[in-house]
Amino acid sequence: MSKKNNIIPHDHKIDKLSRSKVKGHKPKLIWFTGLSGSGKSTLAGKLEEEFFKRGVHTYMLDGDNIRLGLNKDLGFSLDDRTENIRRIAEVSKLFIDAGLVVLAAFVSPLRKDRDFVRSLFSEEEFVEVFVDCPLEVCEQRDTKGLYAKARRGEIKDFTGISSPFEAPIQSEFTIKTNKNDVTNSLKAILDHLKDEIKE
Amino acid sequence: MSKKNNIIPHDHKIDKLSRSKVKGHKPKLIWFTGLSGSGKSTLAGKLEEEFFKRGVHTYMLDGDNIRLGLNKDLGFSLDDRTENIRRIAEVSKLFIDAGLVVLAAFVSPLRKDRDFVRSLFSEEEFVEVFVDCPLEVCEQRDTKGLYAKARRGEIKDFTGISSPFEAPIQSEFTIKTNKNDVTNSLKAILDHLKDEIKE
Repeated sequence: MSKKNNIIPHDHKIDKLSRSKVKGHKPKLIWFTGLSGSGKSTLAGKLEEEFFKRGVHTYMLDGDNIRLGLNKDLGFSLDDRTENIRRIAEVSKLFIDAGLVVLAAFVSPLRKDRDFVRSLFSEEEFVEVFVDCPLEVCEQRDTKGLYAKARRGEIKDFTGISSPFEAPIQSEFTIKTNKNDVTNSLKAILDHLKDEIKE
Repeated sequence: MSKKNNIIPHDHKIDKLSRSKVKGHKPKLIWFTGLSGSGKSTLAGKLEEEFFKRGVHTYMLDGDNIRLGLNKDLGFSLDDRTENIRRIAEVSKLFIDAGLVVLAAFVSPLRKDRDFVRSLFSEEEFVEVFVDCPLEVCEQRDTKGLYAKARRGEIKDFTGISSPFEAPIQSEFTIKTNKNDVTNSLKAILDHLKDEIKE
């Protein structure tokens, strides 16, 4: 059977607009990209807390719930990373269709993969946040002990050490986490987003 | 890099329980299985409308939004069907974690694949609905013209014609759509679920 043909759409009445209206805010994907240890997941988690206080319906996607489930068949080669990000992008699209605000925190080191994510959404549905922190600082933090393992060769294909990171050139928002603490970084993102989430 | 190691969980404060509480109902996966043309998607769509009227936060997964996006790399061989259902199950798990009620309408012809879906959820989170309609009736309806194509050999691996369907033996609910119209079928499912959705 052809992979593309013979999928005949149903005409369902409950659509993105109706699901979005009952939530009282617009759906949006906030995509955090940056090196391991840059603070993506911490910032996304704190941002979710702030949204939650404001009654925004959120969901967070990160390595914890993706790499151990949907994408547990994928490794960290460049091809697998591309497929990893493709699937996350498609899942994000379903969540946006459901009317939610999605916080996605993934290294997503390749520009072409991030561009694919962006291509699935309208301009107002997508915000790329570059969590910008020098490799040296991330490696010094080494909150998970992964850089040490990568340096010892115990982890292959580790971004920044043995696998490339292509810094974003068109992010909607950049936060330098080596120059701002979590509170300040969070405040800056909230300021940037405050008009965009509420109807 | 090992596929399973080096995923170190974050301790995020907003969890399934908190997301569920603000929605005012429990999360649940309602999984419709049955032959093409049995009425899965129609019933799931109507049920979503009813839930929507009652303020339940829903999302619907079906071939329309899965086969053209996340799973567009998959065909209809038995292996690809297994991977198709595995990914849908994992995506459903994310939506349940987000606190939503998910209506999933997929042929899902293999018992082992449906058992895998079930294995990801607690008893109270999962309901399997067998949309039971004889092949002859589905083929007579042939709402999408797919059975005619399958009989002419224009579609390979078509469930019921050239690919197996293993009828469920442990569904929480069975609806015979050749003996009930949509209104009656819907009423029966709503009756069955009414105590389970609301807190």
